[in-house]
Amino acid sequence: MSNVTADYDVIIVGAGPAGLTAGIYVLRRGLKTLVLEGKLPGGRIVEAHLVENYPGFPDAIGGYVLATKMVAQLEKVGGMIVNEEVVSLSLKGEIKTVLTRKERYPTKSVILAIGVQRRHLRIPGEKEFLGKGVSYCATCDGPLFRGRSVVVVGSGDEALEEALFLSDVASKVILVSNDVKLNAAESLIKRFEEKDNTQILRHHQIEAIEGQQLVESIRVRDLTQPESGKLMCTGVFVAVGYVPITEIVGTAGVEVDHRGWIRVDREQRTNIDGVFAAGDCTGRGMQVATAVGEGAMAALSASRLVK
Amino acid sequence: MSNVTADYDVIIVGAGPAGLTAGIYVLRRGLKTLVLEGKLPGGRIVEAHLVENYPGFPDAIGGYVLATKMVAQLEKVGGMIVNEEVVSLSLKGEIKTVLTRKERYPTKSVILAIGVQRRHLRIPGEKEFLGKGVSYCATCDGPLFRGRSVVVVGSGDEALEEALFLSDVASKVILVSNDVKLNAAESLIKRFEEKDNTQILRHHQIEAIEGQQLVESIRVRDLTQPESGKLMCTGVFVAVGYVPITEIVGTAGVEVDHRGWIRVDREQRTNIDGVFAAGDCTGRGMQVATAVGEGAMAALSASRLVK
Repeated sequence: MSNVTADYDVIIVGAGPAGLTAGIYVLRRGLKTLVLEGKLPGGRIVEAHLVENYPGFPDAIGGYVLATKMVAQLEKVGGMIVNEEVVSLSLKGEIKTVLTRKERYPTKSVILAIGVQRRHLRIPGEKEFLGKGVSYCATCDGPLFRGRSVVVVGSGDEALEEALFLSDVASKVILVSNDVKLNAAESLIKRFEEKDNTQILRHHQIEAIEGQQLVESIRVRDLTQPESGKLMCTGVFVAVGYVPITEIVGTAGVEVDHRGWIRVDREQRTNIDGVFAAGDCTGRGMQVATAVGEGAMAALSASRLVK
Repeated sequence: MSNVTADYDVIIVGAGPAGLTAGIYVLRRGLKTLVLEGKLPGGRIVEAHLVENYPGFPDAIGGYVLATKMVAQLEKVGGMIVNEEVVSLSLKGEIKTVLTRKERYPTKSVILAIGVQRRHLRIPGEKEFLGKGVSYCATCDGPLFRGRSVVVVGSGDEALEEALFLSDVASKVILVSNDVKLNAAESLIKRFEEKDNTQILRHHQIEAIEGQQLVESIRVRDLTQPESGKLMCTGVFVAVGYVPITEIVGTAGVEVDHRGWIRVDREQRTNIDGVFAAGDCTGRGMQVATAVGEGAMAALSASRLVK
């Protein structure tokens, strides 16, 4: 028997599109809500130059602008984002506790919208040259490479979007993909190939990043050949996808699948009563559209439980 | 062995938010796509006066305007909506056929985004007075009741939204709800109650709609009392939710649950290979946000299959 009372009906961990949408929904239902975010609100989209596939914006919208709109919408219904990083969760029992570096928050339910972290290449030079030519965000660091030659590593939509953005800035952009056939939208591939300062190395693998103080070249291998060659460049943008954030979740007893994504049912319920998950951390879709869908659904499920 | 070839990679049945989003996604992937819609594109949102909870629009957006933006986005990536009603589906085997009143379309995959239909009250007078005072769409028919007294039947967000819209037009709006506690967002209930021409009859049931040529009154009963009373009004707006559209789906062998919603997994796959479902027809969420999320996911799954 616990004599602790919950200060909140719902605590939402993470203020990306999933968390913000969940917040808008639960606040409109009149629930006492707290949104916690350790970084900037907006999640991954903040780094997106343009979002072209979120329905409702036919002319595309800047990722940062879209994030700002979602934050404004949350604030309009009385929401507030508290800038504190969550360090641990105690989720068993009716009253759950969310612990940040500053505070301990008791709550009746939790929505995990903790997002993902970038996948690394794990090749020589990647760590050493971070911030010295190696980057994981073209929108953030691209402008530093004006007039220079850069490489983008990856095969998906995000890699193509990064490469397209860079092609307006850099003198030359070479996309290096393991795959014979890229895994990105045809429209993106076409637009990239139509530019005259771009090139795609399909079925090629990057093996090392090299230089003195700063990146000067990469070692890259045609996968049909035994030996790698040297390719001169001053920037390497890594866009090879995302991996789950498992630290906090695992120790709290939230079930994840074999790859580390949080297991949820169609109502976004996890294995623990009163704990829901939404957005990239469930490993489904990884799109703004899927994140807002899951955020809304998690909020509907949490509202049903709490009220 | 079939010697029929598929004209399309994907046929999307329905052009509401789920179908339009699916279309935007598969077209961006370069798939040969057809979107079929028997009615106006936009689905249910076309009838929504204002959409306040779709993330990205902090100042709310008219449902029709939002639908128009989504259609424009589809057209921008080369999509086209063909205005033909689907009458039957043949889904077994690798090549599926979608039959409209005009044409027979072979395709490799199908995304069902067929939406829902309105639930009826099934009380005396409801059918008889349809279009003579009984309506299922405040945005469509509300303006006809300027300066008059109307009743809205329902308990959810949609009923409150309809009632709020009508309160700007009608002289008096009475919301009749079976429930003791309404099932709508607190913010909507509060805004409705704060108006001086509104009233909520909680725990009341509408039993009949009465009049001569046109609606003149309803019979309504306080559920704690044995007898019903008469309430004068010229309009009755029914907003008691939605039921699945089962006709086409059932005969095509698509599995539905005990309430008639199409069964899908987290990747929006139905029981039939190459057939996906998204949006309201899966019975999950019933929100614009959840519909676009499912539409995007169905498109990703279909793309994976076809390419």
